[in-house]
Amino acid sequence: MTRFALLVEYDGRPFMGWQRQAHGPSVQQALEEAVFAITGEKAAVHASGRTDAGVHALGMRAHVDIAKPITPFRLMEALNARVRPAPVAVLACEVVADDWHARFSCIGRSYEYRIVNRRATLTHEKGLAWQVAHPLDTDAMAAGAAQLLGRHDFTTFRSAHCQADSPVRTLDRLEVARIGDRVTVRAAARSFLHHQVRSMVGCLVHVGMGRWTPDDVGAALAAQDRQRLALNAPPDGLFFVSAAYP
Amino acid sequence: MTRFALLVEYDGRPFMGWQRQAHGPSVQQALEEAVFAITGEKAAVHASGRTDAGVHALGMRAHVDIAKPITPFRLMEALNARVRPAPVAVLACEVVADDWHARFSCIGRSYEYRIVNRRATLTHEKGLAWQVAHPLDTDAMAAGAAQLLGRHDFTTFRSAHCQADSPVRTLDRLEVARIGDRVTVRAAARSFLHHQVRSMVGCLVHVGMGRWTPDDVGAALAAQDRQRLALNAPPDGLFFVSAAYP
Repeated sequence: MTRFALLVEYDGRPFMGWQRQAHGPSVQQALEEAVFAITGEKAAVHASGRTDAGVHALGMRAHVDIAKPITPFRLMEALNARVRPAPVAVLACEVVADDWHARFSCIGRSYEYRIVNRRATLTHEKGLAWQVAHPLDTDAMAAGAAQLLGRHDFTTFRSAHCQADSPVRTLDRLEVARIGDRVTVRAAARSFLHHQVRSMVGCLVHVGMGRWTPDDVGAALAAQDRQRLALNAPPDGLFFVSAAYP
Repeated sequence: MTRFALLVEYDGRPFMGWQRQAHGPSVQQALEEAVFAITGEKAAVHASGRTDAGVHALGMRAHVDIAKPITPFRLMEALNARVRPAPVAVLACEVVADDWHARFSCIGRSYEYRIVNRRATLTHEKGLAWQVAHPLDTDAMAAGAAQLLGRHDFTTFRSAHCQADSPVRTLDRLEVARIGDRVTVRAAARSFLHHQVRSMVGCLVHVGMGRWTPDDVGAALAAQDRQRLALNAPPDGLFFVSAAYP
């Protein structure tokens, strides 16, 4: 048995999310079926993060154990050939130690949230960004973001369906940048709660529109109450960017 | 009658190109039908450039004459509402002089060609870039591009269907830039021949793959012979970026 680590890009639009679902296609299923087509083995593909329906990945990390002798390069090529027409691409593949785990060995995750701040709806980026018509004050958004940095109880920014043992997370980075009508929020932490990035971005957009002050973000955090959430950003603009390992 | 200038973005994938065609949808038709729905007027929408099937625009300029009294802002909003679900967005709208013409007043056009240089096929960028598996030497591509700058007879880089009176054009800019696996070719000229950008990019990719030397680009240009073209790049990666006016 050889453990292979994969670097995976995908377009989340046609999927119910990363994780296998009974009621629709998933990235995990697409990859596991490709592995089966290549090896005849029913191997589970584990990812560093379980993205939701409609959420994309530029650099998801995953691993899979395969008994059949195959080189990493040939496995990558075969996966890319077999996974079609699903919009999933394996960008890199390497052999890792048997105790390397895409999820449990991961010590850092980063996401990017893409907003297009204009009145017109999206064309080629439809489903790949959140179009926000109201002009966004990105300085105010950055001030709001600063209130979330560090170690906190993120209950306010956590989905009711979150299965994590603790709502406490340490947010290492939450930056807001604007280039023209593009507003990008970049987030990094050891791990995130379910919906945490989308919930934080939703509140920052609320601040950017002037409906909240930056201090309201800190107050919502301190309340540790999901009812205090301003809004949850749609999945469209969210990209899993990278996972870090020791 | 008021003349309105439009700034238009579109996703070229579902269209036969900018220009009205009997056999399929076009951007021009989508906009003209939206104008008709708003005003009841059968007005022609003229663009600064006629992009081919599958070619995109970030900042196409166009104009239309409308008799019905309407403000530029309301016209823009109404066009964006009526043009749906076609992936066309009007980003700006202003009143211009009656002799301002999107095509004939235009003194500069710029394009961007997006290449993703990797083995894996595209996911969320499918149809929005050209995936080239062979590693590209972008220094060689830049050296090849330099041979095309200036005023030349571009017959080699011109479609057989080109309707321009003369094959002579002055290429002001042809730059090759790489960021990671993204290779972007940026081109600017007063005007381009039909297929010129795609033909130039195709030859530069031939250079990048090592099948041509940079000097072969100059030799192909000097030959003034369409048979000397290495290859025509697909429409997917081509974006009309901007048009300049006095």
